[in-house]
Amino acid sequence: MAPVRVGIVGLSANGGWAATAHVPALAAVDGYELRALAGSSAETARVAGEKYGVPLTFGDAGELARHPEVDLVVVAVKVPEHRALIEPALAAGKQVLSEWPLGVSLAETEALAEAGRGKTTAVGLQGRSAPALRYLRDLIKDGYVGRVLSTSLIASGANWGPSVRAGRDYQLHPAGGATMLTIPFAHTADTVAMVLGGFAEVSATMATVRPRVRDEVTGDSVEMTAPDQIAVTGVLTGGAVASLHLRGGTSPATNFHWEINGTEGTLVVEAADPLFWIAKLTLRGSRTGTLEKLTVPARYELPQLAGRSAEPSYNVAHAYARHLKGDLPDFAHALRVHQVLDAVQRSADSGSRVQVDAK
Amino acid sequence: MAPVRVGIVGLSANGGWAATAHVPALAAVDGYELRALAGSSAETARVAGEKYGVPLTFGDAGELARHPEVDLVVVAVKVPEHRALIEPALAAGKQVLSEWPLGVSLAETEALAEAGRGKTTAVGLQGRSAPALRYLRDLIKDGYVGRVLSTSLIASGANWGPSVRAGRDYQLHPAGGATMLTIPFAHTADTVAMVLGGFAEVSATMATVRPRVRDEVTGDSVEMTAPDQIAVTGVLTGGAVASLHLRGGTSPATNFHWEINGTEGTLVVEAADPLFWIAKLTLRGSRTGTLEKLTVPARYELPQLAGRSAEPSYNVAHAYARHLKGDLPDFAHALRVHQVLDAVQRSADSGSRVQVDAK
Repeated sequence: MAPVRVGIVGLSANGGWAATAHVPALAAVDGYELRALAGSSAETARVAGEKYGVPLTFGDAGELARHPEVDLVVVAVKVPEHRALIEPALAAGKQVLSEWPLGVSLAETEALAEAGRGKTTAVGLQGRSAPALRYLRDLIKDGYVGRVLSTSLIASGANWGPSVRAGRDYQLHPAGGATMLTIPFAHTADTVAMVLGGFAEVSATMATVRPRVRDEVTGDSVEMTAPDQIAVTGVLTGGAVASLHLRGGTSPATNFHWEINGTEGTLVVEAADPLFWIAKLTLRGSRTGTLEKLTVPARYELPQLAGRSAEPSYNVAHAYARHLKGDLPDFAHALRVHQVLDAVQRSADSGSRVQVDAK
Repeated sequence: MAPVRVGIVGLSANGGWAATAHVPALAAVDGYELRALAGSSAETARVAGEKYGVPLTFGDAGELARHPEVDLVVVAVKVPEHRALIEPALAAGKQVLSEWPLGVSLAETEALAEAGRGKTTAVGLQGRSAPALRYLRDLIKDGYVGRVLSTSLIASGANWGPSVRAGRDYQLHPAGGATMLTIPFAHTADTVAMVLGGFAEVSATMATVRPRVRDEVTGDSVEMTAPDQIAVTGVLTGGAVASLHLRGGTSPATNFHWEINGTEGTLVVEAADPLFWIAKLTLRGSRTGTLEKLTVPARYELPQLAGRSAEPSYNVAHAYARHLKGDLPDFAHALRVHQVLDAVQRSADSGSRVQVDAK
């Protein structure tokens, strides 16, 4: 079968997420060919093309999307630019894989889900591709813990801490669409939903306990209105009680600790890096009263990536492999995740428990 | 100064909490004399008196309370019996130290607080006497973590798990006054309040995910209506966000993990035993990015008890030592804790955030 010809929007010779994760991921997975890229100008794109050996380079993402030698447009730029890039690509009949979050708001995500209806779309909720988490889901499904009674999770947000990095100032305010709610919390809630079933209802407390943070470029104190504390409790569709607490920044204590307690056993997932959806995860489990390390079976791995689970490209490569099987979360799924985020936001705003619509 | 002459209600030769904790605690602390005890009958009291060398023994607690050689009545029986024992003791002009919880309900606790007004009363919220937790409070007060941003806590309830022990069936239903909410959650919330300041508002999710449990005596499956899942989020009076999740039973994973995150540092408290208020605690802290073990300074200890923090009598002994200084939580304090529990219950019932009245 002919390889899927990929065009990446946002691949720069200066590094960044596309360079760090997508380029090595595509190199590791059969069935793809990195054919095109678009940068912020024709010149930067040309330089990147030379660096990564990509034949087609564009200073305009619309040209990339319309080019007949591109099958799949990968959108790896910041979320405020997504819609303007995705809609033309879909209109040109291309497959689109967008990094998460899909849209800056629930309304924009609705519009993108509508635009993507009936087309081949995917979003970068990499937790759904992580071998350790797919194994975890199967352990739960196969009854390792028996009936799930509860789940408790404490994690850091990585960003939204005491300072903001260069180019990340759009993350300081909800209007930028890239907050601790829409990024780490969304990955967390989506992963919990994959493994245990989603929230039936949520009660949320959110706050911005650092209303001013330091700009790492200028040194200035700047305003932050995005939440840096998200504490959600609720009942999952299966009846288990869930408690999730995310705090901005990183912690010398817990950066990712997730445990699942059931009638017959317990499972614990941990990561040193708060970005668990692209980080190395460790699994421990107990059916006897003593936790033991669990090794992810080889059938969940891509052999060429075995042992590389700490690399950012690892879960992205698994995502590409799953995309070939039509097994990635699509834009409709992205909308469902945004609806959960909206329920959390409404609960935090109103102080009331909010039902999450079953989809 | 003459020692305080103590009469314990509920001290049995067959063991139990009074024998395990109060007898060795009184033996370890200067200023007390264990002068009297009351048991379930004159004969069992006499046997216990011989065993523990207690001169005055009673089959009737009212007689103990009225005896002129008793200054302090210690009530160490199950909570449904408290009121009937405490009110006569107070009426006889005696000091009363009641084990926690004080009353079976908010209303009963109000009545007892009213009966104890102007008198010398105390309740067994041992967390307030624990050296490690008093040291923790002082670390926070002295700015170890800077401004407190958040606190996250996962713990087990010890009881309210898959089975119920002999004599504990009254704990299966809220009417018994001894549930995961009124015992472990109360100790937890009170300790958090001591260290960080209390809740300003709470949003709670509670459930009974094991509506039937096994009676360890008969083997029968019996109904449980007490909550075995309590997940509370909220904002503390100082503005920090708090997340507390208690689950029934014990866990092969986390039985007590509490962390406090601030602008300048982090503190972590852990216990292997869910009953943290009478268990051995370990403290770790970081102001540099690396957690290190913290040793409780000697000034918080009773020298004769150093190294014995894993013994159930350890914090009880510290409580007796503090009682001599008038520094134990009294019945009025017990009522304030019950008011927090009531706020949690109302939030869980209504699905609404509930303000905790500032006292």
